Amino acid sequence: MNLQEYLTENRRTVDKALDEMLPAEDNEPTLLHQAMRYSVFAGGKRLRPILAMTAAEIVSGDGECVMPLAVALECIHTYSLIHDDLPAMDDDDVRRGKPTAHKVFGEAVAILAGDSLLTFAFGVLAGPGSIRIYRPDRLLATIGELAVAAGPEELIGGQFLDIMSENKPVEAQTVERIMLSKTAALISASLTCGARLAGGCEEEIRILGRYGKMLGSAFQMKDDLLDLEGDAAKLGKAVKKDHEHGKATYPKLLGKSKTKDMMRELIDLALDVIRPFGARAAILADIGRYVVERVH
Amino acid sequence: MNLQEYLTENRRTVDKALDEMLPAEDNEPTLLHQAMRYSVFAGGKRLRPILAMTAAEIVSGDGECVMPLAVALECIHTYSLIHDDLPAMDDDDVRRGKPTAHKVFGEAVAILAGDSLLTFAFGVLAGPGSIRIYRPDRLLATIGELAVAAGPEELIGGQFLDIMSENKPVEAQTVERIMLSKTAALISASLTCGARLAGGCEEEIRILGRYGKMLGSAFQMKDDLLDLEGDAAKLGKAVKKDHEHGKATYPKLLGKSKTKDMMRELIDLALDVIRPFGARAAILADIGRYVVERVH
Repeated sequence: MNLQEYLTENRRTVDKALDEMLPAEDNEPTLLHQAMRYSVFAGGKRLRPILAMTAAEIVSGDGECVMPLAVALECIHTYSLIHDDLPAMDDDDVRRGKPTAHKVFGEAVAILAGDSLLTFAFGVLAGPGSIRIYRPDRLLATIGELAVAAGPEELIGGQFLDIMSENKPVEAQTVERIMLSKTAALISASLTCGARLAGGCEEEIRILGRYGKMLGSAFQMKDDLLDLEGDAAKLGKAVKKDHEHGKATYPKLLGKSKTKDMMRELIDLALDVIRPFGARAAILADIGRYVVERVH
Repeated sequence: MNLQEYLTENRRTVDKALDEMLPAEDNEPTLLHQAMRYSVFAGGKRLRPILAMTAAEIVSGDGECVMPLAVALECIHTYSLIHDDLPAMDDDDVRRGKPTAHKVFGEAVAILAGDSLLTFAFGVLAGPGSIRIYRPDRLLATIGELAVAAGPEELIGGQFLDIMSENKPVEAQTVERIMLSKTAALISASLTCGARLAGGCEEEIRILGRYGKMLGSAFQMKDDLLDLEGDAAKLGKAVKKDHEHGKATYPKLLGKSKTKDMMRELIDLALDVIRPFGARAAILADIGRYVVERVH
């Protein structure tokens, strides 16, 4: 199977699991549940869930054994986008080609829908569907690791730094910290948690975590390049917006050309890291190459 | 020990645990961690943590064995207050006698501090300190139960209904649902999760859950009465604010006098529910009486 087929097929599997596991739209209060589903199903590459499945496949041969984790990861990612898009934060009106949650449902409902997705993510991991499948110690370690990756020192802290650094003189250390915490932490945790729940050993988890940090960093560099060079129609969002906001990014710090060089070097290093997996990691290597070559 | 001494002593124990377990203020990013601690330490009765301790004491004789849960409960409660106070929600400037988080730190940081406390709550329950103490199955059940109680069908759903029902003709069914979901669900879960982590049996957990629903409902009725009759200085917040917002409450639906009768009847029923515990539940019964008699 080539990478595009792999991504398409797994995106479908993830979407099906999201549809099955998320509370139904006619659950009370219905508008709140509609808002949760609106943002989750507004598109998206499902990169984090797919990475969890890929990691699980590498260590166990079975990618679909981590669906509750895959769902939790996409819920955490979507909640973070809903809150980041709020007027008090990045004030974005369009995401993935559709109006953002607060444009459709209002700010109050958007805040609550984000809160709901975050809470649901932990609920699905500790829920009956997960408890039946996973070893309790690995499940608890996964919940703990996700709470750190999504918490104030990582994902939320990264968004905080991102906002606080707008329109300020940009420093290398700040750009690096934003990239690692806002983006790389959850991407890396997708791989490590996927491997852990699927029964991977500590060494496998460690290697995947290192790869994930690099992949996540390269992903953010590419996002920042697409903001400057991308096609708004393909991206489904306004371009040059981060640039106008004066966001602290590598392209702003080093220029586009040097950022591209750095990004490609980073992916080459990342591919070296997973060499011990051999052919088992072929798809994961393809994902790395795709992340820096994608056009949206 | 009389009730006031019990509450004072346990509040101190809870505050000490919060101080020890919450990330330090000098953790990066410092302002975000300061905002988390600002709201947690802005006062508060610590009712939910104390209820968890009381339930643990009833079933095991040891109230302090549930401190990670106590900390998680107060973090969830505080996050919900921070988000409820936002301009897009209830737009409150003062809480517990101090400026609300968004007045001190701005809206963006307040949203992120709330997100951080919610995430941290699940992290502390799945963290090394908890894993060392509790049986994994009971810990996972507790995380799952908290995610439901704090989720879109309970706590968040209640806040959603509360906002959506402002300045509308008030219906008994709506008032009841807001009360049960916004307030009673987490208060009830404080007792059931406290009992579960401390090793309680299903029957003990069931009784405490029923008591908790009634106690939480009476608590909300009293809160709504205090909004109308209370002393702003003692309450540490503006009075008649909910009334002016046209909130759907029992006093608005039935008047103050009938609400008081209903609240007292509810507590009498609740005290009957915990009769099987005998003298072991003396303090829990006192808490029930206190909830309807308190002046702040």
